Amino acid sequence: MNAPHDLQTLRRPLPVEMSEALRARFGDRFSVANAVRDHHGNDESPYPSMLPDGVVFAQSTEDVVAVVNLCNQHGVPLIAYGAGSSLEGHILAIEGGISLDMTQMNKIVVLHAEDQTVTVQAGLTRKQLNEQIRDSGLFFPIDPGADASLGGMSATRASGTNAVRYGTMRENVVSLTVVTAQGKVIRTSRRARKSSAGYDLTRLFVGSEGTLGIITEVTVKLYPQPEAVSAAVCNFPTVHEAVQCVIQTIQLGVPVARVELMDANAVMAGNRYAKLTLRETPLLLFEFHGSEASVKEQAQTVQELAKDCGGMDFEWAERPEDRNRLWTARHNAYFAGLQLRPGCRASTTDVCVPISRLAECIDEATMLLEKASFPSTIVGHVGDGNFHVLMLLDPDSQEEWEESERLNHHLVTQAIEADGTCTGEHGIGLHKKQFMAHEHGEDVLDLMRSLKHAFDPNNILNPGKILDARP
Amino acid sequence: MNAPHDLQTLRRPLPVEMSEALRARFGDRFSVANAVRDHHGNDESPYPSMLPDGVVFAQSTEDVVAVVNLCNQHGVPLIAYGAGSSLEGHILAIEGGISLDMTQMNKIVVLHAEDQTVTVQAGLTRKQLNEQIRDSGLFFPIDPGADASLGGMSATRASGTNAVRYGTMRENVVSLTVVTAQGKVIRTSRRARKSSAGYDLTRLFVGSEGTLGIITEVTVKLYPQPEAVSAAVCNFPTVHEAVQCVIQTIQLGVPVARVELMDANAVMAGNRYAKLTLRETPLLLFEFHGSEASVKEQAQTVQELAKDCGGMDFEWAERPEDRNRLWTARHNAYFAGLQLRPGCRASTTDVCVPISRLAECIDEATMLLEKASFPSTIVGHVGDGNFHVLMLLDPDSQEEWEESERLNHHLVTQAIEADGTCTGEHGIGLHKKQFMAHEHGEDVLDLMRSLKHAFDPNNILNPGKILDARP
Repeated sequence: MNAPHDLQTLRRPLPVEMSEALRARFGDRFSVANAVRDHHGNDESPYPSMLPDGVVFAQSTEDVVAVVNLCNQHGVPLIAYGAGSSLEGHILAIEGGISLDMTQMNKIVVLHAEDQTVTVQAGLTRKQLNEQIRDSGLFFPIDPGADASLGGMSATRASGTNAVRYGTMRENVVSLTVVTAQGKVIRTSRRARKSSAGYDLTRLFVGSEGTLGIITEVTVKLYPQPEAVSAAVCNFPTVHEAVQCVIQTIQLGVPVARVELMDANAVMAGNRYAKLTLRETPLLLFEFHGSEASVKEQAQTVQELAKDCGGMDFEWAERPEDRNRLWTARHNAYFAGLQLRPGCRASTTDVCVPISRLAECIDEATMLLEKASFPSTIVGHVGDGNFHVLMLLDPDSQEEWEESERLNHHLVTQAIEADGTCTGEHGIGLHKKQFMAHEHGEDVLDLMRSLKHAFDPNNILNPGKILDARP
Repeated sequence: MNAPHDLQTLRRPLPVEMSEALRARFGDRFSVANAVRDHHGNDESPYPSMLPDGVVFAQSTEDVVAVVNLCNQHGVPLIAYGAGSSLEGHILAIEGGISLDMTQMNKIVVLHAEDQTVTVQAGLTRKQLNEQIRDSGLFFPIDPGADASLGGMSATRASGTNAVRYGTMRENVVSLTVVTAQGKVIRTSRRARKSSAGYDLTRLFVGSEGTLGIITEVTVKLYPQPEAVSAAVCNFPTVHEAVQCVIQTIQLGVPVARVELMDANAVMAGNRYAKLTLRETPLLLFEFHGSEASVKEQAQTVQELAKDCGGMDFEWAERPEDRNRLWTARHNAYFAGLQLRPGCRASTTDVCVPISRLAECIDEATMLLEKASFPSTIVGHVGDGNFHVLMLLDPDSQEEWEESERLNHHLVTQAIEADGTCTGEHGIGLHKKQFMAHEHGEDVLDLMRSLKHAFDPNNILNPGKILDARP
């Protein structure tokens, strides 16, 4: 499957002087070995490999400054690399250059339990974080599925299943340490819960996909581990009725922590993958956080709403092992989906619309997918109006790739016309640049380009992602 | 009381050609009358009047485009004017120019009750909004005290008493319509609850104080009117013990909607102003939102915490009239404070710190104020780590002004050293520019200046606010 256009023509070899400087500074932590470059030139997107010319393993903000300064001096592209779990080609080295591996920057810098914040190095993953802070009674709720790094999650403005209650990275990043394209180390904000002290650089770097600066430390909000957690699952005759139930739940203000939709295909894939016996119709999975009494009350309210919307077999679980059983299907949805077609490559849609328009968008997707020549599943963070179609493609079939692209284009167009977005949480990367003008208009793109130019005048930071450079 | 330096030297008269163009386009809606200019050259800050050369009353985004284009063409400063309730000199015409009055742009554009969003013209005030949407069962929670306009609240990243539960304007603005310095009309985001589609221009304009573009429409989140609301009040022997109670409440994850601190002076002022009989010691005011059961549970939890922290006379009220009685003192705190010294002019501090550092900062403020030569009160949005000292100054005394400035400087320095900010919610305007370098560092200021220059190369939009122009 090819990239939409050949992006490799812009490559030029790494200047010898720069390679020598990197080797002198980093020794073994600078590598041009094929296996290392290959590992850093692939992500979870449907694109083929696009390898960097070399990889540097950073261990400190000072390391990052050194690499940025060399890249800026030599006009060499620089791409930050976290867990490599991007779905949209963010980390592909379309113009070559240096991949800056952040995985060795995986320490907690400081936990402020009393303030419910933690500062971590950008390469720490969310699971590593939650393991290390477990004894504090706090947790970090953002869960995009993959065990992504905090830096990567910040850079793509990630969210996931808990966003309906706890928000996305936009709401949960307190402050960032960033190395600018000029090699300056800045901190975007102090640690107060709110501030009106000038332009919101934190929010500007969150979602900037490595194009405005390199994030080296992240301070995020933490939350008290809830006193009680319960889960519920409910089948519905159609996706439409399930979505109606979600809309009513949100409108009533029930503070549900998670509400996830799986279509019949996704349930079937989950049953096969994890040997479950869920009824193979559209399904909603709920999770409730709060006090014992509040969790009971939430579940009762939702049960009544589900019944009114045609829900069947409402099942409620309080014990951790029962909750895990209910959620197994959802947690495995991505890999279960891939197993429906062994050897396939997935392409994933990520539209997000106002919740009043969600049912019609999912209905349309369902209708289109019934006619598609490849298998697919739908899962959705429906409390946010966000859903994903996992399209399972033959990696050797250009026809399937083109068909999937047409389908994605159709869904995105419908979402934008419903006042929604082409991407709720995966980011633009390479794959969604084609939709930016439709979603935002050319005047907004001009402003974004001005901004990029102001921050990175030599266009060294992840060039060609989010936007094409100023013509 | 003088401004820190004479800012009026940069003024030059409005070009005749431009005045004629404005008169032709706007007729009576363009005014150079002294009374009108005077009204638009004063705010609630301690600065003296600084009048614009003329005032335009906008009625549409197209009107704004016309004014921006004329200002840009003639290099004339342009200052958006909402309710005039700014505390930091935001709307003062330090270089003259045009004040753009937005108060006639006060319509609801569209209410999407099903999605819990509303789009309004920027001049609509928060009370006007809540009155007009009451029948929808929804409300807009952000309450900065003053009946500010939604455009102004967006521009200063306002918050207030409800922020501990509902967030600030940062979290609650979904999308903005903005006229750029180039006269382009852009929409910063679509209406989906989340998006990862490029740079977060919404958050960039929120808090930009009219320096990056003119906000003409605002889409905000709404919330279901809570099923139950209750209030509680509790006295404490000292501010320190009251703050400890707040810290424990937040740490336990009690979803309190409001928690406000008043020091003994503020309580005394409230008693005098509204003929109340509250015990004149430090006081916490709580408000709880939720279901009947959840509200009861929250109040019980807080009552126990208050008792552990030395709280006295915990009083709990469910009926609206009883709640209002409890909250009267807080709602009138600003004007009650002013009445402590008839004819005074107030200067207000606005530091915000991580909550673990709040007690020591308020203790320090209390200690300093005991020695001050002017009266004062302290009120605090303590759930956010934010508090205000209202310093009641003789408007003719340069000594008191300088003393209040030294006191503010001391509190800000302490806050910044505690990893906090000079302004939690009032913005920078003129008054806090002096603290920007200490809070952010010069490299951040350089980035902010680059950003300002990229968006407004001719420096026409509220020049001299937030930052001085690039030297």
